[in-house]
Amino acid sequence: MAGEYTLARLAELLGGELAGDGSVVVRQVAPPERAGPHDIVFVAQARYLAALQSSRAGAVILPPEARDASALPRIITPNPYLYFARVSALLNPAARPAPGVHERAWVATGARLGPDVSVGPGAVVEEGAEIGARSVIGPNCVIGAGVAMGEDCTLHAGVVVYHGCRLGSRVVLHGGVVIGADGFGLANDAGRWVKIPQIGRVVIGDDVEVGANSTIDRGALDDTVIGDGVKIDNLVQIGHNVSIGAHTAIAACVGIAGSTRVGAHCLIGGAAMIHGHIEIADKVIISAATAIGKSLREPGTYTGIFPSARHQDWQRNAARVRHLDELAERVKALENHLQTREKSS
Amino acid sequence: MAGEYTLARLAELLGGELAGDGSVVVRQVAPPERAGPHDIVFVAQARYLAALQSSRAGAVILPPEARDASALPRIITPNPYLYFARVSALLNPAARPAPGVHERAWVATGARLGPDVSVGPGAVVEEGAEIGARSVIGPNCVIGAGVAMGEDCTLHAGVVVYHGCRLGSRVVLHGGVVIGADGFGLANDAGRWVKIPQIGRVVIGDDVEVGANSTIDRGALDDTVIGDGVKIDNLVQIGHNVSIGAHTAIAACVGIAGSTRVGAHCLIGGAAMIHGHIEIADKVIISAATAIGKSLREPGTYTGIFPSARHQDWQRNAARVRHLDELAERVKALENHLQTREKSS
Amino acid sequence: MAGEYTLARLAELLGGELAGDGSVVVRQVAPPERAGPHDIVFVAQARYLAALQSSRAGAVILPPEARDASALPRIITPNPYLYFARVSALLNPAARPAPGVHERAWVATGARLGPDVSVGPGAVVEEGAEIGARSVIGPNCVIGAGVAMGEDCTLHAGVVVYHGCRLGSRVVLHGGVVIGADGFGLANDAGRWVKIPQIGRVVIGDDVEVGANSTIDRGALDDTVIGDGVKIDNLVQIGHNVSIGAHTAIAACVGIAGSTRVGAHCLIGGAAMIHGHIEIADKVIISAATAIGKSLREPGTYTGIFPSARHQDWQRNAARVRHLDELAERVKALENHLQTREKSS
Repeated sequence: MAGEYTLARLAELLGGELAGDGSVVVRQVAPPERAGPHDIVFVAQARYLAALQSSRAGAVILPPEARDASALPRIITPNPYLYFARVSALLNPAARPAPGVHERAWVATGARLGPDVSVGPGAVVEEGAEIGARSVIGPNCVIGAGVAMGEDCTLHAGVVVYHGCRLGSRVVLHGGVVIGADGFGLANDAGRWVKIPQIGRVVIGDDVEVGANSTIDRGALDDTVIGDGVKIDNLVQIGHNVSIGAHTAIAACVGIAGSTRVGAHCLIGGAAMIHGHIEIADKVIISAATAIGKSLREPGTYTGIFPSARHQDWQRNAARVRHLDELAERVKALENHLQTREKSS
Repeated sequence: MAGEYTLARLAELLGGELAGDGSVVVRQVAPPERAGPHDIVFVAQARYLAALQSSRAGAVILPPEARDASALPRIITPNPYLYFARVSALLNPAARPAPGVHERAWVATGARLGPDVSVGPGAVVEEGAEIGARSVIGPNCVIGAGVAMGEDCTLHAGVVVYHGCRLGSRVVLHGGVVIGADGFGLANDAGRWVKIPQIGRVVIGDDVEVGANSTIDRGALDDTVIGDGVKIDNLVQIGHNVSIGAHTAIAACVGIAGSTRVGAHCLIGGAAMIHGHIEIADKVIISAATAIGKSLREPGTYTGIFPSARHQDWQRNAARVRHLDELAERVKALENHLQTREKSS
Repeated sequence: MAGEYTLARLAELLGGELAGDGSVVVRQVAPPERAGPHDIVFVAQARYLAALQSSRAGAVILPPEARDASALPRIITPNPYLYFARVSALLNPAARPAPGVHERAWVATGARLGPDVSVGPGAVVEEGAEIGARSVIGPNCVIGAGVAMGEDCTLHAGVVVYHGCRLGSRVVLHGGVVIGADGFGLANDAGRWVKIPQIGRVVIGDDVEVGANSTIDRGALDDTVIGDGVKIDNLVQIGHNVSIGAHTAIAACVGIAGSTRVGAHCLIGGAAMIHGHIEIADKVIISAATAIGKSLREPGTYTGIFPSARHQDWQRNAARVRHLDELAERVKALENHLQTREKSS
């Protein structure tokens, strides 16, 4: 299914500097250890060059500092991983179902589908929804009433988008994603919970991708907003009225509680947990499995997780944490005691 | 779609003390900063009154201590947030699909549907299931054989309820929820796992709401039980044979392992993790991202998470935790040493 | 629906030593406290025998050291829990839908179904998929193009398997599982993310079970591999290019980041988080809620979570952690000071 290109043609299309035999035919990307004569590989940094030594790859993408580190036909570029991404996209265009509404789909009469939209078997598009040109609604997806989405979106199988939500263009939602369920808004009435109707929407920008089974809740009053170019991994929960700045990437199993504002160009590590009603500045990096309880107003890396240890070692130290305040008081007492003695002697 | 009421009419319907012009027309709830002349806002506590100053809201809900803090037409009530919830519910009644079985739904011949039940396109209701009056089965839901649910339930799109489970009345399940999958019960046979058939059910009370993509497993022998009025957020996992007491609220990304009993009126913060086979008393509050490994037999707030820090600061302190036991021993040695010297001098 | 067997017949079929009246009829498994005269119970270890005292069970499974601890008809076996699993499987055979393609399913003309395959209402099987004999595709499942699965698999409702993935035989996937969504592979281009096409597959061995709403991503270049007999609980995320060794069990809410290799016969506790690009040896046990950031090259138990405490106690100690490095320096200063004084005195 993948195409094939000469190395010279790749350089023409994607840039970079060609070195060595440009006529080598490239059919696929591969890791060095199992690449064959029609595969292209990449080396991100000079220190990973060892992997090339025994590789049978036909061509390689190299950074400038490794320009002459290989005799293979090669392309020199400042960001080999990015170049590799582009070569791979060229060689592996996404399979696209035929346009049209499948006989087993159900589309409400008042829904509007742009040109060349594809609606898969079992998919449901409710009243008033608008689907932009060439967008693909996968099998068994459910698009709620009045949803609007842009062009060239791809919703994989089993996605649910609740009524009224907005998606930009080129949005990708993976299997099982739920967009626009009610936020967790409750008032307490003498011990019983009374639901706050969630009347905001989810508004997603262009070029956003959301991983399998992640959930983004609709806003309580205002909207939950996901900026352009945001990338979200699997099993991530975004609470109501959260806003995520453009080009932020969020790894798997992260939770972001309600009304928190995350800046642009942030990196949030897997299983990080971010409290509600706080602000995270642009370009903040949060380490994996870190809980963030307060606003982070400066860029930089923030961490909150202890390295694990052998169970017995861990237990011995962990038990001491429960008496750390007392330990600190004892150190203070020792200091005071010595100071008093020094003075008196 | 929302209705409209005069402020005086709201006070008639919902109680509270009217102050100022009762003829103002209220069409929607809104936050103070973007409210217009037909919007009503609320101020939960006097210290948040500043938000009102520049608001163009038509009316406001205030607590007694702020009775005269605004010249706006207003309702005075001890719990403004609760009142706001009730006004919003009045103004924003949930959209309800037309009753009846959609032509693209499939309902087994032996299933029994109460009056005015709605079964959406692509939904499947299997043999012997009973759906109470006015309940809504959303598009592409799957209701297993012999499931019974009460009246006025709402199952949003793509919910799966396994065979034999029980739901009370007014239960709301959001998109992608899975009720009644097998619990994680395994016996070990010389290194290989042998499944324990999970023959219990999930039994859910009245007025329960479960957020998107959450999962509640069926019991191994006895049932997993969710009490009346329990509210569960997104991506929560409830293990087999857990029981959750009435009116407990569980925020997103929480996991509760098998056979644990959680009391009534508890609050479980987001991403908290609760071990199996323990007991949590009534009215326990568990902080976000806290792991609970032992039973909590008294009401109160329990916490187990460290505040994060700049990465370098964190690493420096975290490294010390690995030697905390040794540090405590050194402090003890210093104390002993000084005590010995005192005595001998 | 369950069958019935005399205790003697159970011993014939499943082994173990019969003691007492073998003619007692066993119809179901049960916990001791609610067992009746046709129920069989088990006691895993002698110390749990108390539960038997008031039980009205008809028969009991006991370990050798408790052979004579009960007058009930009984089976003596070294692993009562395992024996119980086998009795329960005999008494509770899984309900199996009728073979055949439901009139509301959609199966592409080029898909191949083995003998006695069942495809439920609303299920979609795409072009080129191959389903082995007797496998069950539940309602509203979506099986992508070119997927191949073995014999006797059970896919519960709403499962999504992306194109090209491979499942062995006797694989069980619970509701909402997503297999083969794109891994989280991104290159950065001056602040914007460029997707790395994910051209690997997910390859799942025989006898694997995956819990509700869990996700296993396809590989970037090579495959994500789940070994034979692996058991995965609910809401677990397995990143791209992870490999899980045979017979490893993974509890709920675990995340395993990309390219990590987990050994065979490991136990991973609930809500544990494992970083990417590391190696976990065979027979490693990871405690619940533990974050693993580095390779674990030796078998054994690893832990990384502090016991929670009353909120105020916790806060007092947690605050000290932020100054632990300073505290350690102060202890060092005290030691040096005393040592200097000893020498000088």
